[in-house]
Amino acid sequence: MASPQVRSPELRKDSVTKRWVVFSPARAKRPSDFKSKSPTTQSQQQQECPFCLGHEHECAPEIFRVPSSSGLPWKIRVIENLYPALSRTLGDPFAQNNNPNASGSVGQVLGGFGFHDVVIETPVHSVQLSDLSPQELGEVLLAYKKRIQQLATHDAIKYVQVFKNYGASAGASMSHSHSQILALPVVPPTVSTRLDSAKEFFHETGKCSLCEVRVEDLLIDESSHFISIAPFAASFPFEIWIIPRHHSSHFHELDDAKAVDLGSLLKLMLRKMSFQLNNPPFNFMIHTSPLQLPDSQLPHIHWFLQIVPQLTGIGGFELGSGCYINPVFPEDAAKVLREVHIPE
Amino acid sequence: MASPQVRSPELRKDSVTKRWVVFSPARAKRPSDFKSKSPTTQSQQQQECPFCLGHEHECAPEIFRVPSSSGLPWKIRVIENLYPALSRTLGDPFAQNNNPNASGSVGQVLGGFGFHDVVIETPVHSVQLSDLSPQELGEVLLAYKKRIQQLATHDAIKYVQVFKNYGASAGASMSHSHSQILALPVVPPTVSTRLDSAKEFFHETGKCSLCEVRVEDLLIDESSHFISIAPFAASFPFEIWIIPRHHSSHFHELDDAKAVDLGSLLKLMLRKMSFQLNNPPFNFMIHTSPLQLPDSQLPHIHWFLQIVPQLTGIGGFELGSGCYINPVFPEDAAKVLREVHIPE
Repeated sequence: MASPQVRSPELRKDSVTKRWVVFSPARAKRPSDFKSKSPTTQSQQQQECPFCLGHEHECAPEIFRVPSSSGLPWKIRVIENLYPALSRTLGDPFAQNNNPNASGSVGQVLGGFGFHDVVIETPVHSVQLSDLSPQELGEVLLAYKKRIQQLATHDAIKYVQVFKNYGASAGASMSHSHSQILALPVVPPTVSTRLDSAKEFFHETGKCSLCEVRVEDLLIDESSHFISIAPFAASFPFEIWIIPRHHSSHFHELDDAKAVDLGSLLKLMLRKMSFQLNNPPFNFMIHTSPLQLPDSQLPHIHWFLQIVPQLTGIGGFELGSGCYINPVFPEDAAKVLREVHIPE
Repeated sequence: MASPQVRSPELRKDSVTKRWVVFSPARAKRPSDFKSKSPTTQSQQQQECPFCLGHEHECAPEIFRVPSSSGLPWKIRVIENLYPALSRTLGDPFAQNNNPNASGSVGQVLGGFGFHDVVIETPVHSVQLSDLSPQELGEVLLAYKKRIQQLATHDAIKYVQVFKNYGASAGASMSHSHSQILALPVVPPTVSTRLDSAKEFFHETGKCSLCEVRVEDLLIDESSHFISIAPFAASFPFEIWIIPRHHSSHFHELDDAKAVDLGSLLKLMLRKMSFQLNNPPFNFMIHTSPLQLPDSQLPHIHWFLQIVPQLTGIGGFELGSGCYINPVFPEDAAKVLREVHIPE
């Protein structure tokens, strides 16, 4: 057996749980060195931060940058992850005759081809995403869009997951404001489930479930092109969804004007959440459509952005059952977030 | 709108995510008081612990106790949870004409009927589960069995999730050794998925996937009636499954001899994990079958116990995609756990 340090990443799907798992030795210490994580936050000093201005050479290669108009060398950088979960050099796993449909008694195996990139949202260490102007936040969203469009040119890439981890307990290993983009050679399980339920809803009603979402007491706020709600069956307390008002299947259909509008509503939601909940660790995830979605399915599925503050943690019940226990009804969370007054 | 303090629990299934969520106001502070959780561990002093000997009156009602042979008043207590996620007094939600199949544009709703119990595994505050003898651990497992058999007499209960949270970051709010039993009026999503994949495997091969599990380099250890393995597509580093050697669909089929045998292997796995990984927070979950499983499906499905040390945390990628990134290949984890020598 090759040592874990030199092994290539691999995707495996268990025959019992039907869940794809990315095995990523590049992100590991030696298995024998694995110990329980210290609960202390890894707070980098600014002078040691590779995401800061002047430290670009400490990072993995740059993919592109967004120029700054204020004399700085850059405003946003999209770079490769130094510890990628997937390998961009493995080549197309389908071309390697590594058939993802080959199923043994244990499960399926697929080479770990894919991309794992980082979006550095600002050159300034102390600036957080919600400190940016709506215009600047829009530029971050347009950087996601541009990178998705680049990744979509690879036939083997089936889905692109854009996400942000803020705070060590939400999974962020770097405190400098950033988000991540993972391009996968499979359509992940939450996306398949979402597609199936959207299709079912469309066939029953002739409508898209997110176009039809009844907001009423779940509405938090709205902008020209988006609404923000506490979802009806939120898995987490104070979970927020930002949904385009008009039907759109792919996040990367976002145009410049809508990006600024979304930036404005996203900024407001992050500031309300941070003020009300005492600057909690959080994640946000863009739920978009598979890249190679047939045209016939475009009317079913509607992208949205989900924000989850990390307040309750996940225990044995959630891991075992896949059900979540939420102590706050979404209509109560929506009321609190609607009414919270952010100091100027 | 009723204040959150007096509202009854409710189950909701979102039309987009198809996930059941238990809304449980009894477990909440006021929504407006919700703040980010302090990372400090809530370590109770022994003299304040309601799970200790002599503090029985501070707990919710006892369901049954296992007598002690050493002169103490009890050895194991099964009690109601003081902050139950579900309500045992709501009555059968199906009888209330609260049809779980009634689907609106937002999702399904079901009254929050169910049971949420606690198993106090020892009267002694400083004793952990892995400190018990195999015989004593077997008695804890038989207490789970007895309680499941009691819960199975309620027609509205569809599934019983037994689980243990150890350590604050794994969801344990009490440090005194205990586990929990949640009886649900729905079959949760991981169980439905497991049933579907088991049925599919059986129809393709004529065999049960867990009877056929190829252990080889995934085997950690074995006892007379059980094997312990690192699963082929483990979602988490050093995840362990303990599987009955002979086909059994329901955990509560466990007899006295097998309970002691399982107690012995469970104790060994917990001690190996604790020693190798520096006493990590962990969860274990019993994955059994729905209570009202038709006889025709009994040959498909095989119960097992899953142990998950909490080493890596869950971030935006996992929340968004439902895929997990595991930095340790299961065959490497199995080798480490097979070879680790526990000091006497």
